[in-house]
Amino acid sequence: MPASTSSSPHTGSRPGGRSARVRADVHRAVRELLADEAGEPPTIPVVAARAGVHPTTVYRRWGSVGELLADVTGSRFSGGFVVPDTGDLRGDLERYAFNLAKDLGDPDSLALIRATIGVAGAQGAAACLGERRQQLDAILEREEARGGRPPTLDHTTDAIIAPVYFRAVFTHLPLSPDWTRTLVARLLAD
Amino acid sequence: MPASTSSSPHTGSRPGGRSARVRADVHRAVRELLADEAGEPPTIPVVAARAGVHPTTVYRRWGSVGELLADVTGSRFSGGFVVPDTGDLRGDLERYAFNLAKDLGDPDSLALIRATIGVAGAQGAAACLGERRQQLDAILEREEARGGRPPTLDHTTDAIIAPVYFRAVFTHLPLSPDWTRTLVARLLAD
Repeated sequence: MPASTSSSPHTGSRPGGRSARVRADVHRAVRELLADEAGEPPTIPVVAARAGVHPTTVYRRWGSVGELLADVTGSRFSGGFVVPDTGDLRGDLERYAFNLAKDLGDPDSLALIRATIGVAGAQGAAACLGERRQQLDAILEREEARGGRPPTLDHTTDAIIAPVYFRAVFTHLPLSPDWTRTLVARLLAD
Repeated sequence: MPASTSSSPHTGSRPGGRSARVRADVHRAVRELLADEAGEPPTIPVVAARAGVHPTTVYRRWGSVGELLADVTGSRFSGGFVVPDTGDLRGDLERYAFNLAKDLGDPDSLALIRATIGVAGAQGAAACLGERRQQLDAILEREEARGGRPPTLDHTTDAIIAPVYFRAVFTHLPLSPDWTRTLVARLLAD
């Protein structure tokens, strides 16, 4: 499955012929519609009209708005996120948390997450996480390879990923760099 | 605003005449429709038919599916949650985390949260939290009154509320009593 290869998936065309072009156009239509009007998720006919393709094409390929949103979100949150390698665990985690907070602090990303959670069930939830846990695991494994004793992946998920997603989705509290540094400091103080 | 006064809001009638009855019937219809078919949120005509009221009544009172879902969710997650008072901070937090995990572990509650996040924006997000932070604050203030030095509300939110909501909404990981006890142990070990 082709994934967005840039952290700014709104621009650029993708190789791969007509099928890849349709996918890119439909994905862009979904993102634009969600950015225009937060609120109820777009319907397939509205997405198709915006993308300039026939609704049947969208139904045949994705089946439902839920599957379409999960696909758009999955490609938005996979790839394009560089795993930091600063040379030590604290630096890596601080950079990771900063990047995550910056990503989820973007209103368009948040609108995509909210809409996907709303209609795409468990598949959508997994898409909203993308490769976040794997990326964190890579940081922890690197620390182990250095001879360190990092916290577990579950602990790190509870301490870093969970608060950032929770703050972004459920509150108005700011995702500030001071706060993400504090999350790391608490985790490593244990 | 009348709130659900029981932790099992699916049963029982509410006092207050026709207006309260309409609200109760519409709320119940929303909860039942979401329990029946997780996925796309119900439309107002479908809710009205299920509740046995005229669609115009629903539009006039709530305006949109988003506002309706925020109202249902707000009444589901406000009231009916007893703030634990075990005599010490650890016991109170363990009980609080256990109750929260149990509540969000219920598939019907989760379907309601997901749908509300999807269509009701910031208002919906606030409704999904209900009085959780105030309840936690009450526990922390009681500890201060006992002469203890509890962690801050923000720290406790990051350490307890965030992981429980995150696990429930974004993952398949279990919300087990062992895990919620671990969250409290990590917080109080700082």
